[in-house]
Amino acid sequence: MKEYFMKKALHYARLAGKRGETPVGAVIVRNGEIVSWGYNTRETAKNAIRHAEITAIDRACKRLGGWRLWECEMYVTLEPCPMCAGAIINSRIRKVYFGAYDKKAGCFGSVTDMNALPFNHHPEVEGGVMQEECSEVLSEFFKKLRKERRKDADEQNN
Amino acid sequence: MKEYFMKKALHYARLAGKRGETPVGAVIVRNGEIVSWGYNTRETAKNAIRHAEITAIDRACKRLGGWRLWECEMYVTLEPCPMCAGAIINSRIRKVYFGAYDKKAGCFGSVTDMNALPFNHHPEVEGGVMQEECSEVLSEFFKKLRKERRKDADEQNN
Repeated sequence: MKEYFMKKALHYARLAGKRGETPVGAVIVRNGEIVSWGYNTRETAKNAIRHAEITAIDRACKRLGGWRLWECEMYVTLEPCPMCAGAIINSRIRKVYFGAYDKKAGCFGSVTDMNALPFNHHPEVEGGVMQEECSEVLSEFFKKLRKERRKDADEQNN
Repeated sequence: MKEYFMKKALHYARLAGKRGETPVGAVIVRNGEIVSWGYNTRETAKNAIRHAEITAIDRACKRLGGWRLWECEMYVTLEPCPMCAGAIINSRIRKVYFGAYDKKAGCFGSVTDMNALPFNHHPEVEGGVMQEECSEVLSEFFKKLRKERRKDADEQNN
């Protein structure tokens, strides 16, 4: 089941990538059913809060009609940043499964561990779910981006 | 000027309180002009992400047409929680002035200090601006809430 839902999150990550966004996707699941999803739209929405997790939490609250997502689990392709880890804590999400680790901003173990702090909710966390595929989607995106930038630079120089 | 803008944030905090929400308010300022505002609507919007700061950042991005709020300052009546401190980092807000300290969730010094971590942006932070007034709005709200709950309990017992 973990792989099934992470594949769904990967689907949304790829959609983000196709739109030129850093490819991160998330789904929120309750009782084995996907209740919401989100992908990073920071650039296209021109909005700093539009990470995959925030969009998914926003939609889950709207769909379920409450701010407490006690019964919900999140599957996200990248380790949550401070904003998203905080939103997971605030929404009382029961468990988070993430794929790739984020050395620059990850807040469930990489840069810091929010669960080591005395906040009023500590979600269960499992990192590294389909880690290879989740990392690859990101590294492929950045490889392509660098290639395009080099091509643009070459064209400008010729 | 600090007091002028914090008073505006306090105005929005009181609006939240009148609606039965924990009274926290925020304004975002650019070049001495308020570009957006927000107050806590977690209960009325039934949405975990609807803290004052997130609403203010969301609106500022929409109004200014970009996710980088480099030139902006935030005035908020309570020390930001992890979600909101993270959103401030993500949106590159230049400086944050907050009023009351939050021992339970504050992430610019109280529970932890996000600025002590190697994230890619470190906003300037000044806490304790109009601290007394900002704390009082919160303590008055909770005092009133406890009184109402006692009254309800008394009525049920009689």
